[in-house]
Amino acid sequence: MLPTPNPRVIYAKVPGPGPLVAGEHLVYESAPTIDLDAPLRGGFLTKTLLLSPEPFMRERLRDPSIFTYSTPMVVGQPCRRRLRAGASPSFGEGGRQSQRLYVLYGFTPWEHYSVQPYVDARFDFASANYPSYTFDMDSMLLRPVPDPHGAFPWSRFASVLGMPGLTAFVGLESVAPDMKAYVFSGASGVGSMVVQSCKAKGLRVIASGSADSKVDFIRSLGADVAFNYKTTILASVLAEHGPLDYYWDNACGAISEYNAPAEDCYGVKTLALVFKRRLRIQGFLVSDGMSALLPRFLAEVPVLLAQGKLKSEEQLFVGLEKGIEAFLSLYDGTSKGKPVVVVDEAYA
Amino acid sequence: MLPTPNPRVIYAKVPGPGPLVAGEHLVYESAPTIDLDAPLRGGFLTKTLLLSPEPFMRERLRDPSIFTYSTPMVVGQPCRRRLRAGASPSFGEGGRQSQRLYVLYGFTPWEHYSVQPYVDARFDFASANYPSYTFDMDSMLLRPVPDPHGAFPWSRFASVLGMPGLTAFVGLESVAPDMKAYVFSGASGVGSMVVQSCKAKGLRVIASGSADSKVDFIRSLGADVAFNYKTTILASVLAEHGPLDYYWDNACGAISEYNAPAEDCYGVKTLALVFKRRLRIQGFLVSDGMSALLPRFLAEVPVLLAQGKLKSEEQLFVGLEKGIEAFLSLYDGTSKGKPVVVVDEAYA
Repeated sequence: MLPTPNPRVIYAKVPGPGPLVAGEHLVYESAPTIDLDAPLRGGFLTKTLLLSPEPFMRERLRDPSIFTYSTPMVVGQPCRRRLRAGASPSFGEGGRQSQRLYVLYGFTPWEHYSVQPYVDARFDFASANYPSYTFDMDSMLLRPVPDPHGAFPWSRFASVLGMPGLTAFVGLESVAPDMKAYVFSGASGVGSMVVQSCKAKGLRVIASGSADSKVDFIRSLGADVAFNYKTTILASVLAEHGPLDYYWDNACGAISEYNAPAEDCYGVKTLALVFKRRLRIQGFLVSDGMSALLPRFLAEVPVLLAQGKLKSEEQLFVGLEKGIEAFLSLYDGTSKGKPVVVVDEAYA
Repeated sequence: MLPTPNPRVIYAKVPGPGPLVAGEHLVYESAPTIDLDAPLRGGFLTKTLLLSPEPFMRERLRDPSIFTYSTPMVVGQPCRRRLRAGASPSFGEGGRQSQRLYVLYGFTPWEHYSVQPYVDARFDFASANYPSYTFDMDSMLLRPVPDPHGAFPWSRFASVLGMPGLTAFVGLESVAPDMKAYVFSGASGVGSMVVQSCKAKGLRVIASGSADSKVDFIRSLGADVAFNYKTTILASVLAEHGPLDYYWDNACGAISEYNAPAEDCYGVKTLALVFKRRLRIQGFLVSDGMSALLPRFLAEVPVLLAQGKLKSEEQLFVGLEKGIEAFLSLYDGTSKGKPVVVVDEAYA
């Protein structure tokens, strides 16, 4: 068979703490090809359908000598991120004899076709050399997900049913609010799920956004109080509608400081309030709760989605060549809803 | 009967955020007298035996319009702090007919004799006008404590058996460490109790102090690793002996910023580590756990003390006229062990 084009997005250069630059740190390559008939040697072939650019990936694009919660990505290899859904045109031991197709969910390289497991983009992680808090991001397996049969678009696997929804799900499990919650970025991928989950639990919900259109969206999610934190004095709103028993912080999305050295980060001067007000602050990473909670999440949330009980705003970027633009939209404030890269239009 | 001298320490003036000044904010008055035969009108007379100056009291010496976790003290009235032990020369409905003596434990004015309940120094607290996080410090009752019969000095009620010991007890109940703990100020009143309690639970304990003599004391408490954080690089010690599963912060004693406006406080720039390392930060106030835990504390800890299983360093200040000096020693770094003001030498 003739070589098939296999464009990809390469992680070309370790960035500094400043913004990522398309064409420098992340490079789109249209030239690579793949022979779809080459022997799979026990592997299986996947076709990329949808990709989900996510804020946490910025942390992985770093100097590998810096230890943090995630393992780094490998320079010179395709970006490796959560693939929301990948069809496998051939699957199983028997190679192409078995033409059963599965739609898979997990991490995959940013390219049209891959032979899985894709080990070249895997960071060589020897846990003994790393602090106990480091999680091997490449250890996540691709797993099959059921066909929604039109009840909701496949792209939901890259938003509500992807990392943003799962983050809300895991976070709300780790500290359960019981009366009144405030969600700072209530229109974000994660925040909008938190708002809806809290309302489903019967809580009173206050949420804010950075634009009036976002406030409208938050209101449509059922929040009892919604306001624009850029045009309203946040402290007054909370004083009027408080006290709170739960605050969902957007540290989950504190993207602007993800790769900044500590001395350049904002200094929080009110930590004494932790004891003065008997606060509990709970940090979590979605990866920690994933193995325990993903099965419950995938059993419960698609049903709510099919019943129309969960709203989600997505911004589709069609074509892998739009992948870098989609990713950078997370940082420059231009994103409108959760960005989703549609690699195969049949799955938009 | 002739009037009996009744010296006292008056809270004379609301201080600014700077240091307290003896003779200005706190004034010792030797002139007042009391008629010990005057009718008690249903109250009871107490003689002050021991007083415990405590860091948290600094917060109460403030402009009453500032809302925080504690109710303020009343200007022009005696300082009102935890009295560790007060003998009641007459007690009960029958006035002086019943001469049974009790040693009491709780809050009392800083003066030689008081008629209880002492309402003049009570802050007029209407909870409806205050945030839900404000605790009425004057609501604590005086309660009888048993005579140790020489098994340990009475002054222990103002140190190990007082607020410092209780703080460690309540704090360790709120988040129980299970493997390795680091105690920043391991020689302090609270810290030394935390070190010993953690060792009693079988944990590995790392603790630091600000002087070599404190490090020796910490080692004598059983800490596995003890170091001087002024002459050793803290991060290296923790890197060598970590990872930790518990850190007892000295926010409990972050005295220098107690009354500073937020803009003058130290800005913590590493808050993102809360999620990157899945940390849980738990604030607590000893007053919250007091009603539930004080009976257990008073049942368990005196026994350990009588068995010689708890060490405590106290610095005795003999005479109420030394009370202000004792209190200020908490702030100027001169304290050697937990300061205790001995008002009646028979109870030192």
